[in-house]
Amino acid sequence: MPEDVGTAAGTLYQDMRSAHLTPLWTLEGDIMSTTPRPKSRPWMWKWSTLYDIAERAGRSVPVERGGDRRAIALSNPGLGGLPYATNTLWAAVQWLNGREVAPAHRHTSNAVRFIIDGAGSYSTVDGDQVFLERGDLVLTPAWTWHDHGSISQERAIWMDGLDIPLNNYLDASFFEPYPKASQAPSGTLNGTVLKYGVGQMRPAWEKPSTSPPMSTYKWGDTERALTNLAQADASPFDDVALEFTNPHTGSAVLPTLGCWIQLIRPGVRTRAHRHTGSAVYLAFEGHGSTIIDGMRFDWGPGDMFVVPSWAFHEHWNASSERAILFSINDLPVVAGLGKYREQPFDQGDGHQNIAGAFDSKA
Amino acid sequence: MPEDVGTAAGTLYQDMRSAHLTPLWTLEGDIMSTTPRPKSRPWMWKWSTLYDIAERAGRSVPVERGGDRRAIALSNPGLGGLPYATNTLWAAVQWLNGREVAPAHRHTSNAVRFIIDGAGSYSTVDGDQVFLERGDLVLTPAWTWHDHGSISQERAIWMDGLDIPLNNYLDASFFEPYPKASQAPSGTLNGTVLKYGVGQMRPAWEKPSTSPPMSTYKWGDTERALTNLAQADASPFDDVALEFTNPHTGSAVLPTLGCWIQLIRPGVRTRAHRHTGSAVYLAFEGHGSTIIDGMRFDWGPGDMFVVPSWAFHEHWNASSERAILFSINDLPVVAGLGKYREQPFDQGDGHQNIAGAFDSKA
Amino acid sequence: MPEDVGTAAGTLYQDMRSAHLTPLWTLEGDIMSTTPRPKSRPWMWKWSTLYDIAERAGRSVPVERGGDRRAIALSNPGLGGLPYATNTLWAAVQWLNGREVAPAHRHTSNAVRFIIDGAGSYSTVDGDQVFLERGDLVLTPAWTWHDHGSISQERAIWMDGLDIPLNNYLDASFFEPYPKASQAPSGTLNGTVLKYGVGQMRPAWEKPSTSPPMSTYKWGDTERALTNLAQADASPFDDVALEFTNPHTGSAVLPTLGCWIQLIRPGVRTRAHRHTGSAVYLAFEGHGSTIIDGMRFDWGPGDMFVVPSWAFHEHWNASSERAILFSINDLPVVAGLGKYREQPFDQGDGHQNIAGAFDSKA
Amino acid sequence: MPEDVGTAAGTLYQDMRSAHLTPLWTLEGDIMSTTPRPKSRPWMWKWSTLYDIAERAGRSVPVERGGDRRAIALSNPGLGGLPYATNTLWAAVQWLNGREVAPAHRHTSNAVRFIIDGAGSYSTVDGDQVFLERGDLVLTPAWTWHDHGSISQERAIWMDGLDIPLNNYLDASFFEPYPKASQAPSGTLNGTVLKYGVGQMRPAWEKPSTSPPMSTYKWGDTERALTNLAQADASPFDDVALEFTNPHTGSAVLPTLGCWIQLIRPGVRTRAHRHTGSAVYLAFEGHGSTIIDGMRFDWGPGDMFVVPSWAFHEHWNASSERAILFSINDLPVVAGLGKYREQPFDQGDGHQNIAGAFDSKA
Repeated sequence: MPEDVGTAAGTLYQDMRSAHLTPLWTLEGDIMSTTPRPKSRPWMWKWSTLYDIAERAGRSVPVERGGDRRAIALSNPGLGGLPYATNTLWAAVQWLNGREVAPAHRHTSNAVRFIIDGAGSYSTVDGDQVFLERGDLVLTPAWTWHDHGSISQERAIWMDGLDIPLNNYLDASFFEPYPKASQAPSGTLNGTVLKYGVGQMRPAWEKPSTSPPMSTYKWGDTERALTNLAQADASPFDDVALEFTNPHTGSAVLPTLGCWIQLIRPGVRTRAHRHTGSAVYLAFEGHGSTIIDGMRFDWGPGDMFVVPSWAFHEHWNASSERAILFSINDLPVVAGLGKYREQPFDQGDGHQNIAGAFDSKA
Repeated sequence: MPEDVGTAAGTLYQDMRSAHLTPLWTLEGDIMSTTPRPKSRPWMWKWSTLYDIAERAGRSVPVERGGDRRAIALSNPGLGGLPYATNTLWAAVQWLNGREVAPAHRHTSNAVRFIIDGAGSYSTVDGDQVFLERGDLVLTPAWTWHDHGSISQERAIWMDGLDIPLNNYLDASFFEPYPKASQAPSGTLNGTVLKYGVGQMRPAWEKPSTSPPMSTYKWGDTERALTNLAQADASPFDDVALEFTNPHTGSAVLPTLGCWIQLIRPGVRTRAHRHTGSAVYLAFEGHGSTIIDGMRFDWGPGDMFVVPSWAFHEHWNASSERAILFSINDLPVVAGLGKYREQPFDQGDGHQNIAGAFDSKA
Repeated sequence: MPEDVGTAAGTLYQDMRSAHLTPLWTLEGDIMSTTPRPKSRPWMWKWSTLYDIAERAGRSVPVERGGDRRAIALSNPGLGGLPYATNTLWAAVQWLNGREVAPAHRHTSNAVRFIIDGAGSYSTVDGDQVFLERGDLVLTPAWTWHDHGSISQERAIWMDGLDIPLNNYLDASFFEPYPKASQAPSGTLNGTVLKYGVGQMRPAWEKPSTSPPMSTYKWGDTERALTNLAQADASPFDDVALEFTNPHTGSAVLPTLGCWIQLIRPGVRTRAHRHTGSAVYLAFEGHGSTIIDGMRFDWGPGDMFVVPSWAFHEHWNASSERAILFSINDLPVVAGLGKYREQPFDQGDGHQNIAGAFDSKA
Repeated sequence: MPEDVGTAAGTLYQDMRSAHLTPLWTLEGDIMSTTPRPKSRPWMWKWSTLYDIAERAGRSVPVERGGDRRAIALSNPGLGGLPYATNTLWAAVQWLNGREVAPAHRHTSNAVRFIIDGAGSYSTVDGDQVFLERGDLVLTPAWTWHDHGSISQERAIWMDGLDIPLNNYLDASFFEPYPKASQAPSGTLNGTVLKYGVGQMRPAWEKPSTSPPMSTYKWGDTERALTNLAQADASPFDDVALEFTNPHTGSAVLPTLGCWIQLIRPGVRTRAHRHTGSAVYLAFEGHGSTIIDGMRFDWGPGDMFVVPSWAFHEHWNASSERAILFSINDLPVVAGLGKYREQPFDQGDGHQNIAGAFDSKA
């Protein structure tokens, strides 16, 4: 029988506190919630804002050692000022002026870039130089040396996606500058693309690579895959959606980052569902809307938006042109650690009621 | 050439802030540190304190729906009041009075228990009832129903290890109470131990299981493995250290939790090293010291302590009796996501200079 | 001490024989040879012969139930009359007249086809209809329904590769005719190619497939991969050699069959090596020679030849045009079971002395 | 329209033969049978015969270089004089006199031994010396050095199981004698058993091993696993059956050989089934019968018998004592290459009608 619970417990809780102990029974609902309670909020950053800010940074801020990159990070308003797009994902817009060099370094964060406008810029990843063209996906896996440069007069602009939040959460950040500003590229331009870029063929003398063997997925192949798939099949929740994979293992492009490209066909409104794991989208082409937990996000080229974990979401292309979304997600982490769950929105026709449209000013 | 950087940049930064954008170049050192900067601190909780608090809770706090468990969580002083032992690990001492029932539930957090004193208590995991004996490791993988009970008059006490911090970080918490207080156990006591407990044999008609097939690793086998290994080999950093594994795949016992048992032989002082990933130790038997980043932690039976990511650590058994440490770690996550790094302490004889002894009161 | 070995042993051996027992010590060298002693011999079948025989069969032999296919099997002279190209591989030339149907069936043998001249013919594999074009590789994995047909007036001709010898060796043959002559194709022509034919992209809602997801590897992609690789890298033993892979796992196209395509660049003579595992080659384009255990095999378009296990072999393109070899091999079996060994020919410049040229009439 | 098929075809077939070509349509049923047609026959070798022959060989035949082992091979009467127990499996009884040494060698065949009477004998496998005791399973994976010796005056006797037929079929045999008769054993007796013999624990500093890390599975553990499993579960087809596994991967003990131990409980008659893959059994303890394709094989301790691919089989222990069967099989090959099929005997109560009892003299 508990003896005078009130007083005994009061003292007990004080003693716990001073001993750096916390009783589970006072907080179970908080730390073991019935369903996820993400702090990240659905949010959108408009291209006009992103471009304006990036262009002004391009004029006023040099790319130098220390900063190393002119990257401007989406900072989710739910995360209390942290410069992270979601709990696990860093996303940014990066601007490189013509003839500039973003100096070579390496880090334990995994990174991808999706090129909005390449304009004569290139990346060199562990010695392999690839020119960046609109729609290309470029990988810099953890601890690979990489620098970016430009041989033209024009600025380049792209979306960055990294696992910085996760890397920091896991207390696993290492960073090292390269001794020089740039790596000497190997003799063959686009060498890894030439060797491995047709995914169903592998140099016969090589073993499968657990890291994606090629640094770049060229837009020509990506678009062809989208166009082909559209003729054959589609998902009720994501329409014509493809994941970029390591063709040597079938796994996600990086151990902590998944990358998708999605074609939302004219007139298509997908069914809503929700799942664990968060994503950051770039509207790459066309116009459409994504409804997230009842709020409508209307997007056009260059807009970026976030779908947090366990938020219902559906895509809607009400136009007569194709719309294309690129996105990064943390599904390799969430699913890889056994934390994936999915639930269709099963009311009515599978579409959410729309409570309003997102306005970042509101 | 940047035009009037000062002013333009000032306005730029204001505009960024209001647009929920953050420039990488102002924070690179913070979010991409050269080496990890864990917030978790090396810390120790003495058995006398843990036992006293738990016993008082046992007298004054009932185990009821809502709390479900009389678990008292190690709360790392570096984590700003969060009830977590490290960034990724929950560790607690749990007390169950004789004849009590900790009601059945399930959750997406993975959990392990290491039994300090079983005293007639049992766990039922997805219908398989196992009696808890000193030194047993009991698993409750994500979303398995589990309840604990006792058929004796005595209290039971054990260490809990869960991935609650990670589960919450990933926005992946689901929790469900069982309709009744207890599950009906299947007919065979210790059924999974009987079927799978000799790890190198598998029922011939079954496929390997990606989740550990048995709920319990009995102390008898564990101790035998330690005693055997001590005759054959040891690690310079961890002495006679064994990882509990899923014998059907060779992987860690749970996707997010690793479990180790270590025998530090009399007179052995291991070499120091550091690596990414954090751990919580329970001194299970004997006396010794662990030196963490130059601070000496002297431990005896029941003490629990934390080694954060990238902290140098070495173990020292200066006594003439064997010392045994049980520990949980997040290495399946850290290594599984490609974030593992290790570095030996390579000064002198591989031992750190000891700057002082830990005192939780100091 | 052995008692009167001669007589005792004589009786002993008789008694063994009648008891169906055999002493190891009398045959060790035979059943445990120092190095492999394949019965399969290096051999070549000229295109002129293959075509002539096939054409005559096309005129005089109908394709009917029972035979099901007008396939003419390479029968290695070393195998004592068995209709097998090597110990493990079946290879054949198949001829399909215009408007003919080779009736639908399925079997546990894995099969591939490499198209020499498609001419309006198609294969339907588990409902997916693909038109066959020169250079296409078409798979019919074990137990998939498949039939071949033609919508033109012209004959089609291709190379078949199957694991029939292995399937029979393992006592694992099952065969079933389809209830009708042809399957009803699904609505989408080349459906699997459209869904999966860009190997580094996977429909985002699908799991990786352990069997190759697409039935056909189109020549356009194959040739592009060869041309690309030639700019970036090559093997000293196999020149510009690519293995067809399952892009969802990186493994060979079928569990028992590997497929390669090789470009031997003008002027290239590779270094010789030998390895366990056998292969059957089709000279697809151009002219060259392969030197096998010192014998020169001069080949041109359509010729087929065999390289047995552990035979030294090198390729030589003395012409000024590119030469392309397609081949099937049993390396997935040999390597998958841990039986792979490789040895470079390390005399002189790595080229064998040529003792003579192969002549099937000699 | 075929022109004068008879004559044209006749000449055609002649021309094919001389060109080493064979028409599929004349042999499809033979090379693509509807169901497997194994040449291996169900057969049994009685212990009295095996022991008598082995003992006489022990008296009259020395163990010397060249033969290397006093092994007497089960030679399946269906295999035309080949010294193989089944298409893929070599099985033998081996006799080692007291104080003898069977000299060290290595080969690419995988081998296992199951000890009938150890009597002071030992095996040294890659330097690890293990004493052989009744019921132990000892592995010598491909290309590991191994020699056998005895420190007693008594003879030892065991069952050998190797993949010699497969190794030869694949043209992959390599063999090498060790420079000396015996290897120098490492300091620790039974070293690998001590390190890895508790299968659910792995030295924490080691990676999982794709080859079984321990050379020996001790009978004590095996028997405990059987006794435990008997309390918890059983297979309708195989009763209390366990597969020996590599605890670091869950796979079969060797890439080409599976090993099972089965307890047929008193009074149990299993249901019949058939599957692809062959097996050789050793009746290790007790008495019982196995009915294979309707023929009853009555066995007692030491008897060995064969179940070919796709033969119906069931086990029957009509006695009041436990019966234990050890067996080797080729399922890792058959299943690993995708060739596994299984079918229950679904007439009546699942038991075959018994047409007669096997008699090797008949």
